[in-house]
Amino acid sequence: MDFEVLRIGQRVVRDDRVTTHVALVARAFGASKIYMNEVNPEIKDTLDKINETWGGEFEIEFITNWKKIIKEKKDNSRKIIHLTMYGENINDVAPSLQKEDNVLIVVGAEKVPREIYDFADYNVAVGNQPHSEISALAVVLDRMQKGNQFSTKFENPAREIIPTKKGKNVVMNKTMDK
Amino acid sequence: MDFEVLRIGQRVVRDDRVTTHVALVARAFGASKIYMNEVNPEIKDTLDKINETWGGEFEIEFITNWKKIIKEKKDNSRKIIHLTMYGENINDVAPSLQKEDNVLIVVGAEKVPREIYDFADYNVAVGNQPHSEISALAVVLDRMQKGNQFSTKFENPAREIIPTKKGKNVVMNKTMDK
Repeated sequence: MDFEVLRIGQRVVRDDRVTTHVALVARAFGASKIYMNEVNPEIKDTLDKINETWGGEFEIEFITNWKKIIKEKKDNSRKIIHLTMYGENINDVAPSLQKEDNVLIVVGAEKVPREIYDFADYNVAVGNQPHSEISALAVVLDRMQKGNQFSTKFENPAREIIPTKKGKNVVMNKTMDK
Repeated sequence: MDFEVLRIGQRVVRDDRVTTHVALVARAFGASKIYMNEVNPEIKDTLDKINETWGGEFEIEFITNWKKIIKEKKDNSRKIIHLTMYGENINDVAPSLQKEDNVLIVVGAEKVPREIYDFADYNVAVGNQPHSEISALAVVLDRMQKGNQFSTKFENPAREIIPTKKGKNVVMNKTMDK
């Protein structure tokens, strides 16, 4: 199973931190890559530093034409999952989603172009109440992998957390200058 | 089961939208109330409007002394669940959490006071990688309720979404001026 994420339509300054959180969730919940448009380029440095510290090879690619990406992915048999509060309830579609191999999960800001609903193989609602694209992405990735993403090791980390009941237990594998 | 959320330590302007998303997640994922400090008071108007439009009676309370809240809740036999990437893996503790009745889930911004780790009955890591307090809160509430929060109706909504495969299907129960 390979997960990629496409985030569209953010408004650069206002959504800066929200966009960073979307990228962090994609990485922490086992996606291999995120595509983003209209984004502050510093986000790439932030995620590169996170990879360096905590491991893995999560990728960010800046794009200008999101429709082209969706069409390319569809042509390569990748299924398109669009997250929207108007879609089918995740509780009902999770069993079908779990059977898919390669997916592109599309998360939008408040308004997304109408066409997305037609491009999508699945329009999925992580509940039909308003919340956040950050939480919606997290829950769909968690449900699709049945939590197994939290047992996966990230390769070649400088620091690694050992889960513990109280306090912090961090193994330092490399010396870091920063 | 009753869920309350305590958010501490945000930096007012920078985290404004993130804080709003935390409150929206608490509401959409079945918590009854959120306590917040150092927050832009407009967030209360935002959530009041959401209640009016989409139903339910989710509450926000602004606080100044978070330790007092935690102590009061502990004295009333409410269990304290602190979300931190350093804690025990959610995959391991979910079965214990599901047995609790009334909980206060504590989510912090980047730095939280060390004491929280000792006050907490559970220090829970929604994975040991950095992501977002928004996604962490969502996943812990989803796991504790096994997704049942998405089958719950919010009472007395002006608008209600009927889940659908393509597009948007919204029932208008009341005329709204705005």
